[in-house]
Amino acid sequence: MKLATLDDGTRDGQLAVVSRDLKTAHIADGIAPSLRAALDDWAFIAPQLDALYRQLNDARGEGKARRSFDFDPARCMAPLPRASARVCGATYLHHHELQQRALGRSLPAAWREAPVLRQAASDGLHGPTRALVLAREEWGIDFGAELGIVSGDLVQGATPDAALAQIRLLLLANDVTLRTLMPDELETGFGLLLSKPATAFAPVAVTPDELGDAWTAGKAALPLRVHLNGNPVGTLEAGEDMTFNFAQLLAALARARPVAAGTIVGTGVVSNRSTRRHTPGYASIAGQRWLETIDCAEAVTPFMRFGDTVRIEMLDGNGKSLFGAIEQTLEQAAP
Amino acid sequence: MKLATLDDGTRDGQLAVVSRDLKTAHIADGIAPSLRAALDDWAFIAPQLDALYRQLNDARGEGKARRSFDFDPARCMAPLPRASARVCGATYLHHHELQQRALGRSLPAAWREAPVLRQAASDGLHGPTRALVLAREEWGIDFGAELGIVSGDLVQGATPDAALAQIRLLLLANDVTLRTLMPDELETGFGLLLSKPATAFAPVAVTPDELGDAWTAGKAALPLRVHLNGNPVGTLEAGEDMTFNFAQLLAALARARPVAAGTIVGTGVVSNRSTRRHTPGYASIAGQRWLETIDCAEAVTPFMRFGDTVRIEMLDGNGKSLFGAIEQTLEQAAP
Repeated sequence: MKLATLDDGTRDGQLAVVSRDLKTAHIADGIAPSLRAALDDWAFIAPQLDALYRQLNDARGEGKARRSFDFDPARCMAPLPRASARVCGATYLHHHELQQRALGRSLPAAWREAPVLRQAASDGLHGPTRALVLAREEWGIDFGAELGIVSGDLVQGATPDAALAQIRLLLLANDVTLRTLMPDELETGFGLLLSKPATAFAPVAVTPDELGDAWTAGKAALPLRVHLNGNPVGTLEAGEDMTFNFAQLLAALARARPVAAGTIVGTGVVSNRSTRRHTPGYASIAGQRWLETIDCAEAVTPFMRFGDTVRIEMLDGNGKSLFGAIEQTLEQAAP
Repeated sequence: MKLATLDDGTRDGQLAVVSRDLKTAHIADGIAPSLRAALDDWAFIAPQLDALYRQLNDARGEGKARRSFDFDPARCMAPLPRASARVCGATYLHHHELQQRALGRSLPAAWREAPVLRQAASDGLHGPTRALVLAREEWGIDFGAELGIVSGDLVQGATPDAALAQIRLLLLANDVTLRTLMPDELETGFGLLLSKPATAFAPVAVTPDELGDAWTAGKAALPLRVHLNGNPVGTLEAGEDMTFNFAQLLAALARARPVAAGTIVGTGVVSNRSTRRHTPGYASIAGQRWLETIDCAEAVTPFMRFGDTVRIEMLDGNGKSLFGAIEQTLEQAAP
């Protein structure tokens, strides 16, 4: 099923079920007030949401789901505006290899053995069409298309198989980075905070069964499309070059702690290697700049400029939008 | 006022008001179901809680608060078992100076200019008497006595003065670190995750007015006592050697993002310099080991062993426990 959170003025928003084609929606607050509350009690709530989802999909044009309405992504908050927890992993290692190579280094071997995880902000998460409002272009404002999952409860020490069974929802995100603020933060060893403004999420969260055969071995083998100002800059395959699958990412987190329902685990930027047949482009500007540095000794692609619009979308097996699109325009903050 | 969260089987627990002397309590779920919910709507909820708090303190022995009961810290969860967000700052820089000196380095100058902040886990926070259950002593299991505040809503770019006015509550915490797992995580630049198991919190959260004159300029000028297996190991003054006050810590976070109600900002380990008159001891074993390394070239104080009990407490101006005590025993996890 597909679930969205509508902005009703509350901090956690209002839960809605959205039709598979993303055209209609139905308020679900009679079942659970928010997605957060639904995840707290998923075994009881999910079947009720699923019944409404089936009714909504079946009823198109037949008047069965009579209180449905046109789905408007602009009304959406992030599916989880405040998650229980959020962690991002170094998953598409090609992205991190490029970074290291551009710096004249190589990726530490440990990064290939287990996912390196980063505690990320789990509150203040933004909806899909909210403007990126930042003060200075010189911060090196960069988008970052990534996937994420929302977990159920998981005991500490859970295996990847156990973790796989607890993957409740998939998400699509734009994890924004201020690239010129990042090196100082990496040096402290304390991780990224100033260099990570709010992450935005696509309009709907989807259950893994929505992916059909494309959901295999804890990976989403589907195309990811990134556009900058209407021009395609990334035509990636999220199922390729994913060094660790979602079950492994989640199990890596469970090494450190029990995982609570509503925890988001993100992949970090999706990145594919070029092949003779296909140049995938990029899901973050930094990735492209690192390639330029390696190949030509100089990065030429600029970071985002005020007025730029980034669009991030994943297509399902029928070429339709799976999560709806993230579409964010960069605006200059008022001084 | 003093507020606690009782374990009622729910994820966020049940809100209770606790008397100033920590002897009696009263369920407050008729006012707000949880502390989290109270913080979401503080301007409306706090006066109601305060009225109950006054009644509870006045009524001792007079039968006015008839549904009050004996307060039992063992029934407490963390005041906020799931916070909106949590960040820890490098505040008592003496602690970090010792770490750097023990490694033969010096503290980067930037650490003195603005607080270095670390995104920390905001879920799975533990109550005051919950056992520390960990698998291996070799991880270098260390306690860390620190203070924290809970913030209200704060806009991005807020000044320290504006931040000071949004400090809702003070907390006392045991931020546990697995010291031998820490260096690898510092090296990734992604921050601490595996090396930071669950943090535990003292039974009650207190409003700043409870500190009276000891709450000055965003600091809590009160004694902090740390005992290991009944022996005093730290007799610290939390108002001393605090390089950044809470208002500065919170404003530093607001540089990066708006701060949402219910956000915890922790100080990191409290650490005092020795004076001719007083040897403060330590609030984390690592601090003592770094001193030993600097003075004697070898750390001799062992990290925690299975069966060890750490007790952390802050005293108010009358020498009474302000927050109640954290008292945690280290147990070996079942294999």
